[in-house]
Amino acid sequence: MEKIITVLPGDGIGPEVVASAVKVLQVIGKRFNHTFHLNYAAIGGAAIDQYNNPLPEETIAMCEASDAILLGAVGGPKWDNNPPALRPEKGLLKIRKHFDLFANLRPVKAFPSLLASSPLKREVAENVDLMIVRELTGGLYFGEPRKKTDAGAIDTCVYSREEIERIVENAFELARLRRGKLCSVDKANVLDTSRLWREIVEEKKKQYPDVETEHNLVDSVAMKLITNPGHYDVIVTENLFGDILSDEASVITGSLGVLPSASIRGDNFGLYEPVHGSAPEIAGQGVANPAATILSVAMMLQYSFGLKEEAAEIERAVAAVFEDGYYTADLAQEHTRTLTTEEWTEKVLNE
Amino acid sequence: MEKIITVLPGDGIGPEVVASAVKVLQVIGKRFNHTFHLNYAAIGGAAIDQYNNPLPEETIAMCEASDAILLGAVGGPKWDNNPPALRPEKGLLKIRKHFDLFANLRPVKAFPSLLASSPLKREVAENVDLMIVRELTGGLYFGEPRKKTDAGAIDTCVYSREEIERIVENAFELARLRRGKLCSVDKANVLDTSRLWREIVEEKKKQYPDVETEHNLVDSVAMKLITNPGHYDVIVTENLFGDILSDEASVITGSLGVLPSASIRGDNFGLYEPVHGSAPEIAGQGVANPAATILSVAMMLQYSFGLKEEAAEIERAVAAVFEDGYYTADLAQEHTRTLTTEEWTEKVLNE
Ligand SMILES: CC(C)[C@H](C(=O)O)[C@@H](O)C(=O)O
Ligand SMILES: CC(C)[C@H](C(=O)O)[C@@H](O)C(=O)O
Repeated sequence: MEKIITVLPGDGIGPEVVASAVKVLQVIGKRFNHTFHLNYAAIGGAAIDQYNNPLPEETIAMCEASDAILLGAVGGPKWDNNPPALRPEKGLLKIRKHFDLFANLRPVKAFPSLLASSPLKREVAENVDLMIVRELTGGLYFGEPRKKTDAGAIDTCVYSREEIERIVENAFELARLRRGKLCSVDKANVLDTSRLWREIVEEKKKQYPDVETEHNLVDSVAMKLITNPGHYDVIVTENLFGDILSDEASVITGSLGVLPSASIRGDNFGLYEPVHGSAPEIAGQGVANPAATILSVAMMLQYSFGLKEEAAEIERAVAAVFEDGYYTADLAQEHTRTLTTEEWTEKVLNE
Repeated sequence: MEKIITVLPGDGIGPEVVASAVKVLQVIGKRFNHTFHLNYAAIGGAAIDQYNNPLPEETIAMCEASDAILLGAVGGPKWDNNPPALRPEKGLLKIRKHFDLFANLRPVKAFPSLLASSPLKREVAENVDLMIVRELTGGLYFGEPRKKTDAGAIDTCVYSREEIERIVENAFELARLRRGKLCSVDKANVLDTSRLWREIVEEKKKQYPDVETEHNLVDSVAMKLITNPGHYDVIVTENLFGDILSDEASVITGSLGVLPSASIRGDNFGLYEPVHGSAPEIAGQGVANPAATILSVAMMLQYSFGLKEEAAEIERAVAAVFEDGYYTADLAQEHTRTLTTEEWTEKVLNE
């Protein structure tokens, strides 16, 4: 197989973790006889510095000519006081919208060897294996009108039927491939967009009689993700609720540094990035945890290229290195060995 | 002191927990020589059944003639398929808006004797002592336009400068009376309402140089409430973020059944209610935990009537009963004694 990948290292630890993930990708390519062509481009703060634009035309053009995108992370204190249009995260919001990447998939799975780092009791966190499907191109993030004056401000949450239908279908399909359980999250006791959302889930579920479907309010799910996270298989929700709940879910297994994500659309094109941020405070020290980006490459192989075996191989290697007690500094516990980004990546490559 | 209180028992376990709290109120009245006149009225499902209106005029009139409101809980499966205007929670939303109860205060404090019920590790949860100040009458909950058709739906998040200023001032004042730390929560990297919110906090903080102020994004706070809840003193945020974060925070100390809340405005008038819901599945069995409602009465004494000593007395009594190992069924652990609602209330009264 021959594929073109645009690589967007971004800011902070982005370039470091992306470098590790690229090494893994290349080893997989050699071993399974695939050719991955990598083209590098700028996004976020790095792009603001170079082009005065968090998502330059050059970057868009390169992504358009490729089969998938691998992103590091964006942002940092250097750009914190920039006007909204010149902030790193604007690059992220624009690339999602430009490429219509409406489905954000965030799996959260407990690694037995990382549970000691979890703030939750072991028995609460140990069986967690869930996937949050977040709508990524609609809702309050993009609705018009949006406006701020000195006297007041307004944002608008809009969803069309089509926007809800496609993400809900996506989630049903995923649930079918997993344990067959879907929890749709809304605030239907208050919001009209949520009422429509709930109606559409009710309609669609007739086409998925094999999927066990429930509705739950966002405030209630915010509780249950802590008290009983093992309850969930697939969670589907709108953009802002998904932002909050997926970050909440990301810490329950003690493994924020190892969580990957995929942002996809109807065809095979997608953007893959770690859930964690750019961590400017440790950037350049060679101590960042590359696991999340490496696992994002596994998601790319699976979702964009259909290479299931190759993806599984990466997941197996990462889990094996953790089992052997090798961690980067963020996960270091007593009686474990703390490795640098490069050393840890070497262990994965050896596996 | 002589005060008139409107009591709204509501649905599910509402009447049971309110009955307990009223007993405590009366004992405090006798002991400290205050007269509390209690008038009962209907809200929620009970009011729909009786008046076909979740907040009847009669109830509003009675509340208007009183100094404070004590509410049990509203809602239940019986009314779940009603049209939006005839749903129990509509009564709650209307009473908040009608009386302009813009500040919702939700303290979360760890009881050492309840930590075993927490999903968090003891060392993470044990130092929690925070107060969420949630804006309660603006934002997406009430903004216009709001509309649902078959083709799409829309909700509007609006905040005026005045609405933000008053809640932010309220939070600064509270922080000053506590540990002097304020965390303002927004999504200023995406929303215009959040950018105005952040600007106003920046302005106001000049008047509170003694308060240590920080801004944090809602997704990041959703994580930190789990990984390091002890970090927070006062958290202030808009209506929907407050709904989600305060429910999330309510489970971290294992004591959802014991959390009170106050919904107040500029003067001394306020509505007091437990954070938990109407728990229809255990209603009528006499096993509900009345602690949250009893502690809501303590908040009433403190915030509406300025009776600090009386409030402290109730808090002390509740804590003492827990320390003695007496719990209702929801909190029962091995080696503790499980009491009914009435028995547990008796223990508090004896204290
Ligand atoms: C950086 C920010 C705009 C972004 C979001 O809110 O979507 C981030 O929090 C995320 O979840 O990817
Ligand atoms: C019942 C519902 C409308 C309400 C809200 O969302 O405000 C509840 O969740 C609360 O927090 O008091």
